[in-house]
Amino acid sequence: MADNALFQFLLRMGDNSLILGHRVSEWCGHSPVLEEDIALANTALDLIGQTQFWLGLAGEVEGKGRTADDLAFLRDAWDYRNVLLCELPNGDFGRTLMRQFLYDAWSSVMLGRLMTSSNERVAEIAAKASKEVAYHVERSGDTVVGLGDGTEESHARMQAALDHLWPYVGEMFDSDEVDAAMVKAGIAPDPASLREEYDALVSKVLSQATLTIPTDTFHHKGGRTGYMHTEHLGHLLCSMQWLQRAYPGATW
Amino acid sequence: MADNALFQFLLRMGDNSLILGHRVSEWCGHSPVLEEDIALANTALDLIGQTQFWLGLAGEVEGKGRTADDLAFLRDAWDYRNVLLCELPNGDFGRTLMRQFLYDAWSSVMLGRLMTSSNERVAEIAAKASKEVAYHVERSGDTVVGLGDGTEESHARMQAALDHLWPYVGEMFDSDEVDAAMVKAGIAPDPASLREEYDALVSKVLSQATLTIPTDTFHHKGGRTGYMHTEHLGHLLCSMQWLQRAYPGATW
Repeated sequence: MADNALFQFLLRMGDNSLILGHRVSEWCGHSPVLEEDIALANTALDLIGQTQFWLGLAGEVEGKGRTADDLAFLRDAWDYRNVLLCELPNGDFGRTLMRQFLYDAWSSVMLGRLMTSSNERVAEIAAKASKEVAYHVERSGDTVVGLGDGTEESHARMQAALDHLWPYVGEMFDSDEVDAAMVKAGIAPDPASLREEYDALVSKVLSQATLTIPTDTFHHKGGRTGYMHTEHLGHLLCSMQWLQRAYPGATW
Repeated sequence: MADNALFQFLLRMGDNSLILGHRVSEWCGHSPVLEEDIALANTALDLIGQTQFWLGLAGEVEGKGRTADDLAFLRDAWDYRNVLLCELPNGDFGRTLMRQFLYDAWSSVMLGRLMTSSNERVAEIAAKASKEVAYHVERSGDTVVGLGDGTEESHARMQAALDHLWPYVGEMFDSDEVDAAMVKAGIAPDPASLREEYDALVSKVLSQATLTIPTDTFHHKGGRTGYMHTEHLGHLLCSMQWLQRAYPGATW
């Protein structure tokens, strides 16, 4: 049971970076300017790199011989444990960057805590990933400020992006028995305990961006428990898994 | 060789109706009015029904035990033999109906000829399908007239659809050694020989629709020979083949 909880926790970490990484990679070749195109591709690569670590360890903990690739490419939608925020379609550039910032902020706080995990492997992955994410959150935060406090058009789009995405933020702070087991074992913090630090960081940046955080406290959920994903995840998996589904076991 | 030519010919027939049928099915639940939604779904079903016959016979002729489903779901893009017209994205409702009319007109002429095929099975399939297609071409033709000779907006959209799709019409009348073998065996007509009847039918409807046929005679090709499909086909196959790829051999 403890191992199964750890497996679930690792899937949650790895699926977040996998699904968001794939979403961000969809921008490759389509970004508004070359520098942003490369920056987004780099972000996607970092996220996929983190996925390799999280899902690789998840496969080891599960002990059924599944590799990170097996977990990434051979599960169906209901076995994914990413928060819904990560699977939402990109929308416009502003929405993509707002989603990135809202995720990066959570990720930076979470990884900071995981660096002191009682599980050495988890602590090591967190230490590596946190360096990348510190850069991600700086970059996405700067872009949110630049566009939010930009033209009338860019401000309106960023506020619309925030209004659209905010109801997906709360899921990152939900807790269940998997989290309770992680807290008990000293492996990971209670997600709820990250909220204060997150809100401080996010409020500061969004305030600089002249954007208003919605006051409605409702939030969507079902992703991190696997209870119900949005229909968007299935479409994403169609594309992402195509090669391994059509050519099982294909390698470079 | 004769059998391989027949196999290729049957793939061309079946892939046209399969790929166009899948495209049309994408409208299911999204059409502008309920009657059109059901009409499009019915059209898609007819096309998939025709596919069953053409690809079923193709599998028999090939003699390797492949069923219509195997051919539909387990080939990759380069093995498809549909004309490019059939795989183009739907665009707006007007473009979808223009594509349908340009295809239905060809299909009605082609099936009329195939009803006297020296191959009894081909003649039988053509006889069945031609009844459905006679209705399709009437319906798509009427809609093209209604929208072309409609409002300023609908006229402009239909002219834009025709301008966009016309360069894909010519491929339906290309001939190669497969067609030569079919002509020699009395199985199917030379595609080029259908052009006069097609032009008469299409000109009449488009003229009623107050639309202008582009004068540029260039046409795209590569679909019916499999030399090169558009990138759209691969994306379509991702969705269409997902279930059989993820769950090989799955049945109802």
